Amino acid sequence: MIAIDWGTSSLRGARLDTKGRVLDERQAERGILSVAPGGFQTVFESLFGDWWTPGTPCLMAGMVGSRQGWQEAPYCPCPAGLNDLAGALHWLVPGRLAMVPGLCQPNTPGAEAWAAPPDVMRGEEVQIFGALEALHLQDATLVLPGTHSKWVQVRGERITSFRTHMSGECYQWLRHQSLLSRTLPDTDATALDTEAFTHGVQRALQGRGLLHNAFGTRTLALFDQVPAQRLSHYLSGLVIGEEIRHEARSTAPTDPPVVLMGAPALVERYRLALSLAHIPTLQAPAQLGYRALWRLQQLQ
Amino acid sequence: MIAIDWGTSSLRGARLDTKGRVLDERQAERGILSVAPGGFQTVFESLFGDWWTPGTPCLMAGMVGSRQGWQEAPYCPCPAGLNDLAGALHWLVPGRLAMVPGLCQPNTPGAEAWAAPPDVMRGEEVQIFGALEALHLQDATLVLPGTHSKWVQVRGERITSFRTHMSGECYQWLRHQSLLSRTLPDTDATALDTEAFTHGVQRALQGRGLLHNAFGTRTLALFDQVPAQRLSHYLSGLVIGEEIRHEARSTAPTDPPVVLMGAPALVERYRLALSLAHIPTLQAPAQLGYRALWRLQQLQ
Repeated sequence: MIAIDWGTSSLRGARLDTKGRVLDERQAERGILSVAPGGFQTVFESLFGDWWTPGTPCLMAGMVGSRQGWQEAPYCPCPAGLNDLAGALHWLVPGRLAMVPGLCQPNTPGAEAWAAPPDVMRGEEVQIFGALEALHLQDATLVLPGTHSKWVQVRGERITSFRTHMSGECYQWLRHQSLLSRTLPDTDATALDTEAFTHGVQRALQGRGLLHNAFGTRTLALFDQVPAQRLSHYLSGLVIGEEIRHEARSTAPTDPPVVLMGAPALVERYRLALSLAHIPTLQAPAQLGYRALWRLQQLQ
Repeated sequence: MIAIDWGTSSLRGARLDTKGRVLDERQAERGILSVAPGGFQTVFESLFGDWWTPGTPCLMAGMVGSRQGWQEAPYCPCPAGLNDLAGALHWLVPGRLAMVPGLCQPNTPGAEAWAAPPDVMRGEEVQIFGALEALHLQDATLVLPGTHSKWVQVRGERITSFRTHMSGECYQWLRHQSLLSRTLPDTDATALDTEAFTHGVQRALQGRGLLHNAFGTRTLALFDQVPAQRLSHYLSGLVIGEEIRHEARSTAPTDPPVVLMGAPALVERYRLALSLAHIPTLQAPAQLGYRALWRLQQLQ
């Protein structure tokens, strides 16, 4: 089969053998933002056409199934397990080419919509089911950091609920566009300034709120109390710490483990920040989406 | 005397009689951002030169005293009363032309700088002392909404502490630049959508955090649960509610009153949001800075 992860800014796919092992992989800078409406089939055929022979089914996950993608695959409501996803595939060519729907967390029943808005993910769901299999977990809290971080509850191998935080996007704004950016250097050191980041997380966990704490990044520079090149790491700690403060629970030995998955540099920041909030974490191996797509195909 | 409020984006000044009453007022779109370094004296003389005769002192408040202004007037540390400001004027022409220093809230003694960063204001201090006089208050909590809102504690007519929240700037980003802006109309209705705003404030007060709640503005649009033109008012409620959630205290009859001051449309939003958090407010009359500058001159 062919398994494809087609996201907002990147596209990658693999040919898998009958046991789900990767035979071959291809990547391209053809995220959905780079594809004009109506151009998806051409991109698909140019990249994967030679693999896509009769008898070789293809499943695609990610933003390709959004309103701005190839075709909109309606969200599958939570709670949802792999079986539910398998039954809700959105077929472009019946039996041959399908998109995996994203998940939605419906409104709280009985409440007005804006008192408890829905939540959505698209693409993360296959990563999550891949991680559950790789780590042999039935129950877990999964944290997927990113532009829009996801905190996901899994019970009995089903995604029961999740929440999105706009942390990555907010950090980019604070770092590069807000008033704070005027007292920060143009570029950051690649290596994490652990001490500065830790101070940011600890400040956030005290609970004064990001709208206030972020301003401290400016005043520390104004009074030359912290070198400017350390402040973006402090700010990163403020933002990630704010997200964690709102999600942190009192950990009990009976709680399911917290699993971190995503880009290694970001996962490392979250691992450190969560440990400062006394939340131990497991780390999922990278690139588990292909495996989950293979399992979805087995369920057809 | 001449009293001038010279801010980031606007400049206004008045000629006051010996009792502090306004004889004449002039305004110009010559905030400090529009003045090139070295150009402040020329702007001052062109606008106020004919008023500024020998024996007519002039006091200026606002960002004109910042590093990007005419000359930097070092911050006066809190706690500070009108007497402290009067003794800390930054004279450009001794006895004739001075800038009022801004206030700083120093770091918490004993803590590392980034565990408790300082805070700053410049220009708000004269508004605050003007409000205390107009309302005959010795003790108060003052709230000055804006790009960078200020929450100010006053005891015994002295500003004892204050905190800044980047709420206005954050709202502008969420509304006009973030992912959310793609599902919001280009312009907003001028009149406040009270119901939508109230829902936003109430959602914020539940405490899930703005990084999460803001994303709800997108999903409500995605599922057509709320008309797009109502969502910017909901978002405004989310941001203002977040600020208030972090500042709200359990109100007791013995607490000093909460005084709101600033642009009328914004004050109205904060009044409503604070009432939803069960915090009653007084409203200060507008434009109290001249009066405080006159009192500062009397103290020379």
